[in-house]
Amino acid sequence: MLGKIALEEHFATEETIGDSQPYAPAASWPELRSRLLDIVDRRVREMDANGVELMLLSLNSPAVQAIPHAAKAVDLARRANDFLAEEIAKRPDRFRGFAALPMQHPEAAAEELRRAVVELGFVGALVNGFSELDENGTTSHYDTEDHRPFWAEVERLEVPFYLHPRNPLRQDARVYGDHDWLLGPAWAFGHETAVHALRLIGSGLFDAHPGVRIVLGHLGENLPYGLWRLDNHNAWHGQRASGYRARRPVADYILRNFLITTSGNFTTQALLSAIMSLGSDRILFSTDWPFENVDHAAHWFDAASISETDRLKIGRTNALREFRLGG
Amino acid sequence: MLGKIALEEHFATEETIGDSQPYAPAASWPELRSRLLDIVDRRVREMDANGVELMLLSLNSPAVQAIPHAAKAVDLARRANDFLAEEIAKRPDRFRGFAALPMQHPEAAAEELRRAVVELGFVGALVNGFSELDENGTTSHYDTEDHRPFWAEVERLEVPFYLHPRNPLRQDARVYGDHDWLLGPAWAFGHETAVHALRLIGSGLFDAHPGVRIVLGHLGENLPYGLWRLDNHNAWHGQRASGYRARRPVADYILRNFLITTSGNFTTQALLSAIMSLGSDRILFSTDWPFENVDHAAHWFDAASISETDRLKIGRTNALREFRLGG
Amino acid sequence: MLGKIALEEHFATEETIGDSQPYAPAASWPELRSRLLDIVDRRVREMDANGVELMLLSLNSPAVQAIPHAAKAVDLARRANDFLAEEIAKRPDRFRGFAALPMQHPEAAAEELRRAVVELGFVGALVNGFSELDENGTTSHYDTEDHRPFWAEVERLEVPFYLHPRNPLRQDARVYGDHDWLLGPAWAFGHETAVHALRLIGSGLFDAHPGVRIVLGHLGENLPYGLWRLDNHNAWHGQRASGYRARRPVADYILRNFLITTSGNFTTQALLSAIMSLGSDRILFSTDWPFENVDHAAHWFDAASISETDRLKIGRTNALREFRLGG
Amino acid sequence: MLGKIALEEHFATEETIGDSQPYAPAASWPELRSRLLDIVDRRVREMDANGVELMLLSLNSPAVQAIPHAAKAVDLARRANDFLAEEIAKRPDRFRGFAALPMQHPEAAAEELRRAVVELGFVGALVNGFSELDENGTTSHYDTEDHRPFWAEVERLEVPFYLHPRNPLRQDARVYGDHDWLLGPAWAFGHETAVHALRLIGSGLFDAHPGVRIVLGHLGENLPYGLWRLDNHNAWHGQRASGYRARRPVADYILRNFLITTSGNFTTQALLSAIMSLGSDRILFSTDWPFENVDHAAHWFDAASISETDRLKIGRTNALREFRLGG
Ligand SMILES: [Zn+2]
Ligand SMILES: [Zn+2]
Ligand SMILES: [Zn+2]
Ligand SMILES: [Zn+2]
Repeated sequence: MLGKIALEEHFATEETIGDSQPYAPAASWPELRSRLLDIVDRRVREMDANGVELMLLSLNSPAVQAIPHAAKAVDLARRANDFLAEEIAKRPDRFRGFAALPMQHPEAAAEELRRAVVELGFVGALVNGFSELDENGTTSHYDTEDHRPFWAEVERLEVPFYLHPRNPLRQDARVYGDHDWLLGPAWAFGHETAVHALRLIGSGLFDAHPGVRIVLGHLGENLPYGLWRLDNHNAWHGQRASGYRARRPVADYILRNFLITTSGNFTTQALLSAIMSLGSDRILFSTDWPFENVDHAAHWFDAASISETDRLKIGRTNALREFRLGG
Repeated sequence: MLGKIALEEHFATEETIGDSQPYAPAASWPELRSRLLDIVDRRVREMDANGVELMLLSLNSPAVQAIPHAAKAVDLARRANDFLAEEIAKRPDRFRGFAALPMQHPEAAAEELRRAVVELGFVGALVNGFSELDENGTTSHYDTEDHRPFWAEVERLEVPFYLHPRNPLRQDARVYGDHDWLLGPAWAFGHETAVHALRLIGSGLFDAHPGVRIVLGHLGENLPYGLWRLDNHNAWHGQRASGYRARRPVADYILRNFLITTSGNFTTQALLSAIMSLGSDRILFSTDWPFENVDHAAHWFDAASISETDRLKIGRTNALREFRLGG
Repeated sequence: MLGKIALEEHFATEETIGDSQPYAPAASWPELRSRLLDIVDRRVREMDANGVELMLLSLNSPAVQAIPHAAKAVDLARRANDFLAEEIAKRPDRFRGFAALPMQHPEAAAEELRRAVVELGFVGALVNGFSELDENGTTSHYDTEDHRPFWAEVERLEVPFYLHPRNPLRQDARVYGDHDWLLGPAWAFGHETAVHALRLIGSGLFDAHPGVRIVLGHLGENLPYGLWRLDNHNAWHGQRASGYRARRPVADYILRNFLITTSGNFTTQALLSAIMSLGSDRILFSTDWPFENVDHAAHWFDAASISETDRLKIGRTNALREFRLGG
Repeated sequence: MLGKIALEEHFATEETIGDSQPYAPAASWPELRSRLLDIVDRRVREMDANGVELMLLSLNSPAVQAIPHAAKAVDLARRANDFLAEEIAKRPDRFRGFAALPMQHPEAAAEELRRAVVELGFVGALVNGFSELDENGTTSHYDTEDHRPFWAEVERLEVPFYLHPRNPLRQDARVYGDHDWLLGPAWAFGHETAVHALRLIGSGLFDAHPGVRIVLGHLGENLPYGLWRLDNHNAWHGQRASGYRARRPVADYILRNFLITTSGNFTTQALLSAIMSLGSDRILFSTDWPFENVDHAAHWFDAASISETDRLKIGRTNALREFRLGG
């Protein structure tokens, strides 16, 4: 399929490139490194070869979120966003930007998002999970009251917020034992991100700001499969499930306030399952370049056993609508 | 459908009943309590009313696993199993038993399993996740070397091992923040159990003991949906994914050594997804009584949009084969 | 689900009621007869009880199509449409109309369609398969050149054309032997209608008039399941498949020019299959009252294992869009 | 996947080769001709290249069925079966045979089937739809009383009967108008064969001979999609649906007495739909060589988004069981 739009596509700056090294075995690191630092050269060739017209670019993970000093996080986000804006300016026909945000400081994050959207022309934000607030492992998820003004700004700007994975801190990862292979994309990424998304829902955020849209990668971080059980539990506990502060069932918010992408999860079984659970209007193509290959994503997607109607929506038109990319 | 067999069906003794109280709001506790303590009275009426011919019974959660003293755990397991055997003897046409096991002490667990199968006629074991080894939060998952003799015994006895959920210890649950609604069946149960299952796989257990069969409830604790991504990650890291000690991809073991049940997950979307990922031979009906209603499970299952061939297998004949229940 | 819109909902006049008698066993005929002759009384109660806000009404089958005299067909269609318009005027909040058309006389059919849409406010046409041109079994399908001006008018008026089933003439039904149970909805309806739809496609109609939209009932008369094989055959024969005069593969037209409804086919397996083949934007709820029960259709549809997003589209918003029913 | 077994794989003799010419455009005929006349040469290379271990071979269509003289049909069938047995003897490790049968003469057909199974070692019969009894278009379907002794023999021999498509006679094909592209595999094959299968069911054959197993190609000739509607109609008419003489609903017989193959229908949407309707135990891999390519079939099947459990069953073990091919 020609004209695909891809949403979870990463780059790195010299300053953040090191954050991606743990995700590659030593032998693969030179390749991964060069892929991340390339913005508009090889990347465009990959896109051309695989029918990808447009990529929405974002900084690698965890980058800004792992900086335990708010001021430094603010500074890094600004510089990364400026750098990205310059790169996009070289090929505005092929790239748009997601803002990196210093969520350690919600007011600064709101301000940086506004600047990125209004001044730099970015189409949303991509944030790598929770933020570290200090070097003792104090972390911040974004369901707390102090983030509400930030979300108000997201709603006002009418841009999606991509909640991208990161690993838990080592002290919170005891369940994985010595099975480090379960960290990262295999399992821990999905768990961390799904729980964060559920906390946003359970906090009542989407009752207060119904216009906020969250994007989840990897076909929804297992949430589509678990959706019924999430709300069955709530039903069993009645309206008073401990700590659930939202007005409606979880599924209502997933269907209304969330979008999911195919990044890094190129399997038709899960895609069909997601279509059965969420419907094809909420699903968008993505590759997760450079951690995944664009050709792997494209070859799979172009041949997946879905209707051509859905292929066009997932591959392109849902993104046009949600990010207002139309001419 | 008549003749259904259900596998994840719990009871409690006066000694363990308190473990289930946290899972019920106060108003529901008397009802839940009486359901758990009833073994063959109301339970049989529920079964008769809903086409369930046979239930495989198991102790409530976490019970034995939460006892931080091995000797006490051994003692409780023995007494609970003896109690269950007596109850089953009242209606051997309608009930069979799963052994509770003191996994804190792997040799004792192997011995108790042997006794339960050989002497009490039990058809397998059901264990509530990791075991607590002391009161400081030292925990034991069963992928470690010291459990290998236990698994050798499981293989020798040719009985399935049901890995049932429990909650993480509070110190390992920081990711849930103050969202206690995410504990238990809504999300934490599935995560804890899926990771434990993956650790068993990654440890190489099933290479050493290919005859070991693990049963997972709740339509597989989200594993079917995440299966592709688990192995894609391994592929990307080559053979050397950090800490992965098994010979083949994760999916191979899931398809060969695992069975999943419908307990507490009465949703056709996930069931169809599981059929697409695992095939109907690996899926078995269950209700999760008394935490779920038998009628909810049965009404859903009897009308779910699957083939009648699959309904018979999932509802009955897969269990006959896996537990050798045939006449 | 409240607010459903249903599209294949029939009534009869005293003049056409007899055409439906063969479809009912004698014991059911009084009930079927009274259901068909009722327009806005019991019908509204059925709708209220089952969450149906709006019905698009159409004359029973075969009615006008089985009249082997063009002038009489023209006359009957006019009178039936006028009658329907009067009935709708009693409850314009709950009903809209499909025009019956004398397809025996394409120019008169075009004129009557224009009159029905412009003067009577109808939202499209519903035609019961091929027309009989004389009493010797000469029949007319609508893929021939002489129908092109009619289709030009359909395109100009921008209203859907519902191609409803009828039985083959007895001389064309030898394949069914003495198995009369295969006539009507069981099988012959679907075959006759699917072939007619394929003839429209193969004639090149939709190349000449790309704005024409055809609605098929009964989840697409088996076409979604057979779609791949239709075009595989074409591919094998190259561009020159004997008698195929359209520019693109069959599936392209099905996806672009066709809509299907759930009338009389209340099965989730086929619905999911249709979603996988056509996508949920092309599927619309219908009941086929009074040949099917509204409650059967609604209970099934409201609980079918599809996403809520798709339920809303199939149940309501697709119809709002395709028939411009919005306020 | 290695070790696949394919069931609908055709050859021709010099005598029957002409019957296949109408299915190929002139430019393709030399290729098709040489494929049909080759039995164990190129065919084995195609199998080796595509992971097909075993093919069950059958005569091309319509061959014996189109001979309007019973004695000649009997003679041709015998000679074709003898020829096939000799060819198979060259590579008994890679081929088994389906008997061609002179169904014009049911007693002779029973005798020839017995001879083919007992003396030639064939594993079943493959018959190309209805038989022509004279040159005036008198046809015979196999649901009539005079075929009951034949079916008794099929039951006694415990071998499957493959009901393969053929085209209707021209006089019965008026519905296709001048759209000859709808004849053959595109549509007419499926309709003719599905109706014949339904006549067998409706005749009560499977009540009288419950051991008879019918194989249908092309993912079931659209029957899986239409299954619900077939029985819904019966239900509406009560027990007395005109001419329906079987004791149970159509779906019961489809699930118990029928098998379907993937021949010539390489589409995952329909395969998943068939799995949802019939279950994977009733579906078997086939290619329809030489009318379809073995590589097309194999590449599609090996990568189709089904579980590996089902791939093994559909690709191999269902055939081992149904045809008793095991060592
Ligand atoms: Zn990513
Ligand atoms: Zn349980
Ligand atoms: Zn109708
Ligand atoms: Zn064939």
